[in-house]
Amino acid sequence: MVQLIGDERLDYLLAEKLKIIQSPTVFSFSLDAVLLANFATVPIAKGKIVDLCSGNGVIPLFLSLRTRASIIGVEIQERLYDMACRSVAYNKLEDNIKMVNGDIKDAPAQLGFEKYDAVTCNPPYFQTDSLEERNENEHLAIARHEIMCTLEDTIRSASQLVKQGGKVSFVHRPGRLLDIITLMRAYRIEPKRIRFVYPKEGKEANILLVEGIKDGKPDLKVLPPLYVYKGLNEYTEEMASILYGNN
Amino acid sequence: MVQLIGDERLDYLLAEKLKIIQSPTVFSFSLDAVLLANFATVPIAKGKIVDLCSGNGVIPLFLSLRTRASIIGVEIQERLYDMACRSVAYNKLEDNIKMVNGDIKDAPAQLGFEKYDAVTCNPPYFQTDSLEERNENEHLAIARHEIMCTLEDTIRSASQLVKQGGKVSFVHRPGRLLDIITLMRAYRIEPKRIRFVYPKEGKEANILLVEGIKDGKPDLKVLPPLYVYKGLNEYTEEMASILYGNN
Repeated sequence: MVQLIGDERLDYLLAEKLKIIQSPTVFSFSLDAVLLANFATVPIAKGKIVDLCSGNGVIPLFLSLRTRASIIGVEIQERLYDMACRSVAYNKLEDNIKMVNGDIKDAPAQLGFEKYDAVTCNPPYFQTDSLEERNENEHLAIARHEIMCTLEDTIRSASQLVKQGGKVSFVHRPGRLLDIITLMRAYRIEPKRIRFVYPKEGKEANILLVEGIKDGKPDLKVLPPLYVYKGLNEYTEEMASILYGNN
Repeated sequence: MVQLIGDERLDYLLAEKLKIIQSPTVFSFSLDAVLLANFATVPIAKGKIVDLCSGNGVIPLFLSLRTRASIIGVEIQERLYDMACRSVAYNKLEDNIKMVNGDIKDAPAQLGFEKYDAVTCNPPYFQTDSLEERNENEHLAIARHEIMCTLEDTIRSASQLVKQGGKVSFVHRPGRLLDIITLMRAYRIEPKRIRFVYPKEGKEANILLVEGIKDGKPDLKVLPPLYVYKGLNEYTEEMASILYGNN
């Protein structure tokens, strides 16, 4: 059994393969995290992965279905870290996933420099220029706004963690494309694969997936677009396959 | 009548609305130029436009169907400049299009700084690190390789020509996305619209269209993808409409 606190729920993740603890007032994972966990290149049989800004552990949980590498999730909010730990335990994944409650800026000093094969990060999207637009719920505000860390902080930490030739992948808004790839290059992560996600045909992209290689050679590929919906509210085949698996 | 030199042909441009002089051994326009002429935002009723690296004038000719603004095309190769002039004359567009035979690096000094509403450019795509890969035909080599001008030269000149709030658009290879948007920002052209062109569904993008505004605010949109072909070798409806017009 699992202990649920407050308005927490135990939701399915990837059909019935995993369950994850969520809460509408504390943290619920987004489509973006699922897309990143699907997009990121990870070692299959062995290796070491770090997920920064891990929230309720959605990306480590998802990745555990794709890899036997060890996965460390770093989350600064103790409340979310605790949710993630309980989800890891519920799914009996303690041997695969270790959650760390800490600041991603301290992660390289704590976890080791240039030791990881892959780093993933679904960072807070919104700059904090305007306090008015900020969510009044502190948990959601920290997860969504650059309060505890900026985009540059996440890219710097990712670059410090990943080994030469290792992969770093992010999900973000297309509007930040320029910032993200400029910062990746500044921190020696050469962007190699970009995929834009469109809500449906004929609409502008609303999600950006990008992966780079530490000290990689310039050779950027723009992958085929991914459409989330077709028709009114039906997932495309590809999206359904990502969300629910192929069985 | 039109005078054709050597292996030049008089080809249709946009169905039967225009004709253009081409030559397989000197210069033939590419799909990329047509896509840029369709993608670029241009003033409709009046204004001033410059097209850099104009080749046989394909972009000015195409744009003349979309705008009554005056268009200047700048081409460094006298042989191509001459083809463009004859095409302009053949189509009786001397009042709309003026060709200039010169170096784009000198264009701002010759044509005026910050006086233009829009600048377009389909630059040479290939860096010239390797002399071996270079086309032995000098006309084609100059059109395709950064021999006479680099990407930075084109972006600097475009930025110097365009007025504040004016638009600058380029077509290039997706692999140069990082270079192009980094240079655009360095020269005060804030990228605002990007469109990737895919040869067909499921393939990686092979053409990049990007437009920025001089001293514009950061707000990048990634437009819906454009597919060139469907099935075996049939143009998609959108591509056919761009190539042949809507009539």
